[in-house]
Amino acid sequence: MRIVRYAVGSVRQYGELEAGDARIARFEGDPFTGLTPTGHVDEVGDVVILPPLERPRIFGFAYNYVSHIDETDREVPEVPVCFMKPSTAVIGPDDAIVYPADGELIHFEGELVVVIGKEARHVKPSEAHEYILGYTCGNDVSDRIIQRKESQFGTLLIGKGQDTFAPLGPVIATDLDPSGLSLTTRVNGTVMQSASTADLLLAVPDIVAYLSRYLTLLPGDAIMTGTPSGVGPIRPGDEIEVEIEGIGVLRNPVVAESL
Amino acid sequence: MRIVRYAVGSVRQYGELEAGDARIARFEGDPFTGLTPTGHVDEVGDVVILPPLERPRIFGFAYNYVSHIDETDREVPEVPVCFMKPSTAVIGPDDAIVYPADGELIHFEGELVVVIGKEARHVKPSEAHEYILGYTCGNDVSDRIIQRKESQFGTLLIGKGQDTFAPLGPVIATDLDPSGLSLTTRVNGTVMQSASTADLLLAVPDIVAYLSRYLTLLPGDAIMTGTPSGVGPIRPGDEIEVEIEGIGVLRNPVVAESL
Repeated sequence: MRIVRYAVGSVRQYGELEAGDARIARFEGDPFTGLTPTGHVDEVGDVVILPPLERPRIFGFAYNYVSHIDETDREVPEVPVCFMKPSTAVIGPDDAIVYPADGELIHFEGELVVVIGKEARHVKPSEAHEYILGYTCGNDVSDRIIQRKESQFGTLLIGKGQDTFAPLGPVIATDLDPSGLSLTTRVNGTVMQSASTADLLLAVPDIVAYLSRYLTLLPGDAIMTGTPSGVGPIRPGDEIEVEIEGIGVLRNPVVAESL
Repeated sequence: MRIVRYAVGSVRQYGELEAGDARIARFEGDPFTGLTPTGHVDEVGDVVILPPLERPRIFGFAYNYVSHIDETDREVPEVPVCFMKPSTAVIGPDDAIVYPADGELIHFEGELVVVIGKEARHVKPSEAHEYILGYTCGNDVSDRIIQRKESQFGTLLIGKGQDTFAPLGPVIATDLDPSGLSLTTRVNGTVMQSASTADLLLAVPDIVAYLSRYLTLLPGDAIMTGTPSGVGPIRPGDEIEVEIEGIGVLRNPVVAESL
């Protein structure tokens, strides 16, 4: 199932994207407490597609593809290296990534995102799938200048946490095997990243197990699993697309901040 | 006003701690949407005091007192260096800090915590007080071994984000000038940290201005402002107290994790 969150006027709901992606079968409820079919069908052209999660907690993994570690001249980390992005960074499909007024070097990072479905603590890798609702596409937008300055002191927030720096969507795909999905990032139609999630250093089940060993994962949490090689700059006027097999295309324009 | 969040049986509410701290005047509502006096008074001995915020976003500032920068052999950062702690790390007064089964070096860090009252973006330091609800005490519990391994790669999550690593409380003190409060941390009654918030490198108004320049602060967000010198290890069996003038004492025992 490909679950979409959308608005008709001021009403927000979840639905299931039907074959051909032209129509949505409307649900009552949400995927975490329970979805009930309503029998109502909406035309995609009549609605606004929203980010699939409303202000989620976002956990991120850094340096989780060897190809990206190589392009950053780093070693493979001794432990998984993680961070958080604030919920206010989330935008949905077609929403604008706002290029900060004083931004100097802002990068895209296409990523597979895990959506947690059930509270999870001390979960084994072999059980992780029971706690995962599904998967979506994400763009871990990063301000490299600030990121470098923060990282010198071993912290990371503003470098990855600015408003609009976490595009997510377009759907949550359930019943998807995350172990070998093709991931492509395009800037203005040119392919910049092309990889398989088979190359993740810490695979999805291990990611859920690692985080839940130390902290309680909650329904609706989003986990950005890391980016492969090919990251690069974005500029106002660009259009960034992250496409993952079985999920779809997350497309966002970049606009300059107006203060 | 000193606002306390508490439970009577399974009902959770906010109230105002009355003089002598023996009684609570019960409110309806919450401090972010509006508090209405009910006329009902609870005895402190009959209730359970909860963390003052329910699963808040937590932003932290590192290296924000010169005395702590000195003890860590660091330079003053070029930009403020921030991180997030997950909401699931929060515990309240008298709740146990769980010492991880494989923990090797866990530190306390006593801190002044700012509680945001209104959505804030692009706020000037001179206007910051309009967006602040009040202040509470916090303990930024840190797993130094994991923190160091993460920080080598410029990230920080598990080092400060484990369950129970964010004790907050006991109250949210409003109408408090944060610019020169005495802060004391005790371990088993022995004073380990003694400082004034006058020594914060980035003062409270500048902290709110800095974060809101890049991201939208939300009602109920907690900002841990950094720790002064004197940080040190905790062990199962210890009792940690963080006391801040005008707020009160946040007291937490440390217990070993049982798996």
